[in-house]
Amino acid sequence: MEKREGEGEGEEEQVVNPWTVSAKGGGKIDYDKLIDQFGCQRIDQSLVDRIHRLTSRSPHVFLRRGVFFAHRDLNEILDAYERGEKFYLYTGRGPSSEALHLGHLIPFMFTKYLQEAFKVPLVIQLTDDEKCMWKNLTVEESQRLARENAKDIIACGFDVTRTFIFSDFDYVGGAFYKNMVKVGKCVTYNKVVGIFGFTGEDHIGKVSFPPVQAVPSFPSSFPHLFGGQDNLRCLIPCAIDQDPYFRMTRDVAPRIGYQKPALIESSFFPAMQGETGKMSASDPNSAIYVTDSAKEIKNKINRYAFSGGQDSIEKHRELGANLEVDIPFKYLSFFLDDDAKLEEIRKEYGAGRMLTGEVKQLLIQVLTGLVERHCRARAAVTDEMVDAFMAVRPLPNMFN
Amino acid sequence: MEKREGEGEGEEEQVVNPWTVSAKGGGKIDYDKLIDQFGCQRIDQSLVDRIHRLTSRSPHVFLRRGVFFAHRDLNEILDAYERGEKFYLYTGRGPSSEALHLGHLIPFMFTKYLQEAFKVPLVIQLTDDEKCMWKNLTVEESQRLARENAKDIIACGFDVTRTFIFSDFDYVGGAFYKNMVKVGKCVTYNKVVGIFGFTGEDHIGKVSFPPVQAVPSFPSSFPHLFGGQDNLRCLIPCAIDQDPYFRMTRDVAPRIGYQKPALIESSFFPAMQGETGKMSASDPNSAIYVTDSAKEIKNKINRYAFSGGQDSIEKHRELGANLEVDIPFKYLSFFLDDDAKLEEIRKEYGAGRMLTGEVKQLLIQVLTGLVERHCRARAAVTDEMVDAFMAVRPLPNMFN
Repeated sequence: MEKREGEGEGEEEQVVNPWTVSAKGGGKIDYDKLIDQFGCQRIDQSLVDRIHRLTSRSPHVFLRRGVFFAHRDLNEILDAYERGEKFYLYTGRGPSSEALHLGHLIPFMFTKYLQEAFKVPLVIQLTDDEKCMWKNLTVEESQRLARENAKDIIACGFDVTRTFIFSDFDYVGGAFYKNMVKVGKCVTYNKVVGIFGFTGEDHIGKVSFPPVQAVPSFPSSFPHLFGGQDNLRCLIPCAIDQDPYFRMTRDVAPRIGYQKPALIESSFFPAMQGETGKMSASDPNSAIYVTDSAKEIKNKINRYAFSGGQDSIEKHRELGANLEVDIPFKYLSFFLDDDAKLEEIRKEYGAGRMLTGEVKQLLIQVLTGLVERHCRARAAVTDEMVDAFMAVRPLPNMFN
Repeated sequence: MEKREGEGEGEEEQVVNPWTVSAKGGGKIDYDKLIDQFGCQRIDQSLVDRIHRLTSRSPHVFLRRGVFFAHRDLNEILDAYERGEKFYLYTGRGPSSEALHLGHLIPFMFTKYLQEAFKVPLVIQLTDDEKCMWKNLTVEESQRLARENAKDIIACGFDVTRTFIFSDFDYVGGAFYKNMVKVGKCVTYNKVVGIFGFTGEDHIGKVSFPPVQAVPSFPSSFPHLFGGQDNLRCLIPCAIDQDPYFRMTRDVAPRIGYQKPALIESSFFPAMQGETGKMSASDPNSAIYVTDSAKEIKNKINRYAFSGGQDSIEKHRELGANLEVDIPFKYLSFFLDDDAKLEEIRKEYGAGRMLTGEVKQLLIQVLTGLVERHCRARAAVTDEMVDAFMAVRPLPNMFN
């Protein structure tokens, strides 16, 4: 047995790959260590400032507050953009559940910002084949979930004139399949064992999948969009657990004559019970879903959102809240747009002058608004709109 | 390391899989042992007679003379046929070379006979993806070879109203890809190591391929041909080195709700230098190619065809030829249609009354005729005909 990447000598080392996110000894993910392990770069203030300057708009809250905190070759993408060269965005989702939770929305909210800020085309992959294989869903159920999830994605506000959404079951074939074969030829089984931790008892569907997620990084996989523009660069916004796929992709790209995709990577949105990993699909109380009612949101936050406040009011007034572990504050730092207001809470709540109840109250307000807006937007997404986003078609003005 | 199937304790055990055919100690393939190893059945005279009766025509020479010698579930296919149920044929070719040799023609000549005798549709898979991965050809070169080989296949005389030829690079996707995923889910990596002998240093393209060759066994992979007829049976004529793919396929089929394909399997056409395995693409003198001129055929047979005759005429007259190792006689037993004539040669040559030169002379005549007919037929195959065979289309009268 080879040692898997992300595993150390002890059992309690943190493991981050597309299927497992677990911190050392049940604690918090050590993102600095992850950056070292994976070999990506931290996004620093000067890079945020550069994006601000190049796009002439305030960087997204996820960028200002370090939710998207790591990257690969982002400077090269910006260099090219500054020279007037174009790029395209690629992100995706594994459609394993009916309803998305807030953590699922993060890459899409951020990708929408990138699309608007840079005025670039976007491809969104729905890996229904992956979920069919990993979650033991039927082909039909995976496809149904892909379409349902597409509605939530469209509800995030993507521009249909610049966005192509595709499901693998629909789209694999032709130029896309040719690229899958080209990638597959360059990656040994031992290599995917090292990267993804597969074992001999894993089925070969799993072993076959990494090229499927790799090839949307190459413009030639989309001849109807980028015919002939084989050197177009690709920027992938994603959570950092997807990095293994793209490390593999970047390793292969130059060997088959393609550009390496660049990456901009987020940390994980913490579970209600505390920041020890990603949210769990099996525990509905670990996350706020976009289908939750206002009442459910209120109850979940009041009951389950882990508080960093002290046990008694007296102690709280004296010591203040521990913002490092406080979930209401953490959630606000993702979704409260107002920098001044967040700063005020940081000071007042941290000093004990504000109580957990007040912070939870504000969070309930913010999330109820967000979920209500999402629901309204989703309700307006018709089947015809889904068809329009998923049609294999040219996007004539995608760079304008 | 797991022990690979087909390998015994010693190094010299025979190995038969899609990429390696080598007999024990460089001798002849032991087909009886292969039948035991693989777990298939021998085709006996009563089965040949049954085919004769059901099709009301003389069984093909390859069937009469035991070239196609093994099967799986052929009786079940014939039972169904007798009840008036239909089936379809599936065969294929890995397009790794420009010109085909006689050994390559055998499955196609036989498949043409089956198609005519049973009046059934046929799908022919050109595994350009496989050859791109195994032979390190470019995608473009593999596709070009697939089209060139399609011309040779069409030249064998298939009926365009009952035949769909497809290349994987063109056709993988949709229903076909969905079946690939269904199959991939049911086969562990350890299992393909056991069946095909892959190692950890093999690339994942190879590991991904077995489902591609498996799924043409299922009618739902061809919705334009068999839409809704998900229980249609499939019969696969192939050389026995392809058996590992279909053992895997038959193992998976009931688990995903499909019929197991039946098989009818041939021995290998021996090399000019003697019956120790398959012909080698790297030694042009080991085989007669369909592109060889009459002069080349004559020279190759006279120079290289291994003779079972004795060293001197006197000894030959006394002992007779060893027909077990004699390549001219062996080749005639494949391609000389006339049973009485072959029987006469067996007697006369075996008894030493006929000399190797005479037998070679007859073989030259037979093969020159065959190759000339093939060349004329191939020259008549236009690009439009290739397009017609490869068009994704319904075949309305394919069972008539």
